[in-house]
Amino acid sequence: MAHALRLAERGLYTTAPNPRVGCVLAHGDEIVGSGWHQRAGEAHAEVLALREAGGRAYGAIAYVTLEPCAHHGRTPPCADALIAAGVARVVVAIEDPFAEVAGRGIARLRDAGITVDIGLLREQAYELNRGFFSRIQRQRPWLRVKLAMSLDGRTALANGQSQWITGEAARTDVQRWRARSSAILTGSGTALADNPRLTVRLPDTTPFQAPLRVLLDTDLRVTTAIHLFDASVPTLVYHDATPAQLSTSAKAGRANIEYQQINRTHDGRLCLTAMLQDLAAREINELHVEAGPTLCGALIAANLVDELLLYIAPCLLGDSARPLLVLPELHAISDRSTWRTLEQRQFGPDIRLLLRPNS
Amino acid sequence: MAHALRLAERGLYTTAPNPRVGCVLAHGDEIVGSGWHQRAGEAHAEVLALREAGGRAYGAIAYVTLEPCAHHGRTPPCADALIAAGVARVVVAIEDPFAEVAGRGIARLRDAGITVDIGLLREQAYELNRGFFSRIQRQRPWLRVKLAMSLDGRTALANGQSQWITGEAARTDVQRWRARSSAILTGSGTALADNPRLTVRLPDTTPFQAPLRVLLDTDLRVTTAIHLFDASVPTLVYHDATPAQLSTSAKAGRANIEYQQINRTHDGRLCLTAMLQDLAAREINELHVEAGPTLCGALIAANLVDELLLYIAPCLLGDSARPLLVLPELHAISDRSTWRTLEQRQFGPDIRLLLRPNS
Repeated sequence: MAHALRLAERGLYTTAPNPRVGCVLAHGDEIVGSGWHQRAGEAHAEVLALREAGGRAYGAIAYVTLEPCAHHGRTPPCADALIAAGVARVVVAIEDPFAEVAGRGIARLRDAGITVDIGLLREQAYELNRGFFSRIQRQRPWLRVKLAMSLDGRTALANGQSQWITGEAARTDVQRWRARSSAILTGSGTALADNPRLTVRLPDTTPFQAPLRVLLDTDLRVTTAIHLFDASVPTLVYHDATPAQLSTSAKAGRANIEYQQINRTHDGRLCLTAMLQDLAAREINELHVEAGPTLCGALIAANLVDELLLYIAPCLLGDSARPLLVLPELHAISDRSTWRTLEQRQFGPDIRLLLRPNS
Repeated sequence: MAHALRLAERGLYTTAPNPRVGCVLAHGDEIVGSGWHQRAGEAHAEVLALREAGGRAYGAIAYVTLEPCAHHGRTPPCADALIAAGVARVVVAIEDPFAEVAGRGIARLRDAGITVDIGLLREQAYELNRGFFSRIQRQRPWLRVKLAMSLDGRTALANGQSQWITGEAARTDVQRWRARSSAILTGSGTALADNPRLTVRLPDTTPFQAPLRVLLDTDLRVTTAIHLFDASVPTLVYHDATPAQLSTSAKAGRANIEYQQINRTHDGRLCLTAMLQDLAAREINELHVEAGPTLCGALIAANLVDELLLYIAPCLLGDSARPLLVLPELHAISDRSTWRTLEQRQFGPDIRLLLRPNS
């Protein structure tokens, strides 16, 4: 199963909106077939493994990182293929939460007299597809906020200068996180100040599926020809402008730019929950956020952030420099949001922390 | 030598103002005697090792983490003792910078026909006594600033609430850093706001030498009965008050409190360099700083900080909370002070970084 998980990981940058899945067929210690899902619409991991194994699939044990499908989607059901090939036993890491599978794949295998064991390396299989599970089970993407700061928690000088606080290794690492995401979100403030491309620029030729670029621009403040409107990759703009404002916006109707209206909440801000629901409906699994202190702070304050990816550059910028996050003022230290560190790693001179909220 | 260094480390909390020194006497792989310096005025490492070895010191190799002394201080010269015992060879990790030794110990051994090798694990021997070397070579203590902050670089709420951001493991660790220091410095702001004891409270019964408590109080603002004036441990107050102010100060003449005037610089602040020189003259090797953003920032801005001990608690306090450091505003990102991370460790939920300035 560990091997199957490593195979599944190869689909990290390409399977969206599908989950990353790996499959290994074995007789005892001998692997007779293996496969991993590469792209939506293409063959599932089980089919590739069965194809490799040929007649040797008969009597084999299949290790699959996610419950085999039972429905006719873009490909025929994998459960049927495993039955037809005569595998003796199927070991599943975790059940598929997708309504059209959700236990039916396992039931179909068992109905055919195949022993099915569930739960081997379940946690790892879950982690590999947190975005997929989040979208199906919570109807919102897995939301990861990336931040980069100095040792004293500052992101830019008072005059706005910020590039580059972190080193090259950290910046390359960020590209990998972008590559595995289905979408990258930023706000109008960052779009205007930094004019980011929000495209994926990997240091090698690893294939990836270009993430959707998402701009949150409530009043359609961004009227200039920023990189996000360069049409190289689709961009989705969330707003709550009037139809008149929208029609006069220079970008409306341009190639690869879509506008989506979302209602405001009572505080006049765009409803972040509604935005995330819409992104889930668009099959966004992992949402990567690279935005300013206001949007990142609003997401954190609304308890919508699942993961904080924090790069710390070993430098000091001082108290006049810009803050990491704008958050509502606390009146008691016990009200602070607390996080747990999943991982800490060094990237060149910089430190990367991966954190999740304490629930 | 590695063994000798481990022995020397046992004196971490007790040898000040003397350096931490260890000595091992060996015939090949067999150790015949070992010792470490415990307290100023007591036997040196070499003497203890020779005592243990007795007649077996004859023809042995002596591994000493610091050049043996050649002068009659509080104890007779160790070089003479090694010669008298008939050791065949002496391996020294690093030369003693102290004027009355500085090569003379080595010369004396060589004059007696003993082979002396220098430099084995030199860097480690140097690190163990950075404070001692700093005081002798730079006439100022090794200055370590301890800071504790949230993930977003904040130390306390806007209303001042701060205790406790970090967890128990981190706070216990701080006590160990205090214990190895010769003095602990704070400013009047912290003294008034937090009323710290600045004593050493180790979780076990490890012996330590109580560090001198140092309060920087330029205008003698602190007039209340704070813990620093409890006389449990000596406290030194640096100030630049008038004699009249000083004489009316309630604490003057109290037991265990000493006042030391230091001139101001042109900006009206106490001259930090003069303060550090005075502390060195008082035989302070390692100076541990636990102060607020103003004093810590001033020390950093003056390039007087040798080491930053930064605890990061995995919580968020927001932009209204208090900053880590008050530093002069930067106008170009290239002007920022940069640091290198010597070590990162986890203490319970908190992360500890140990950093030194990039020179």
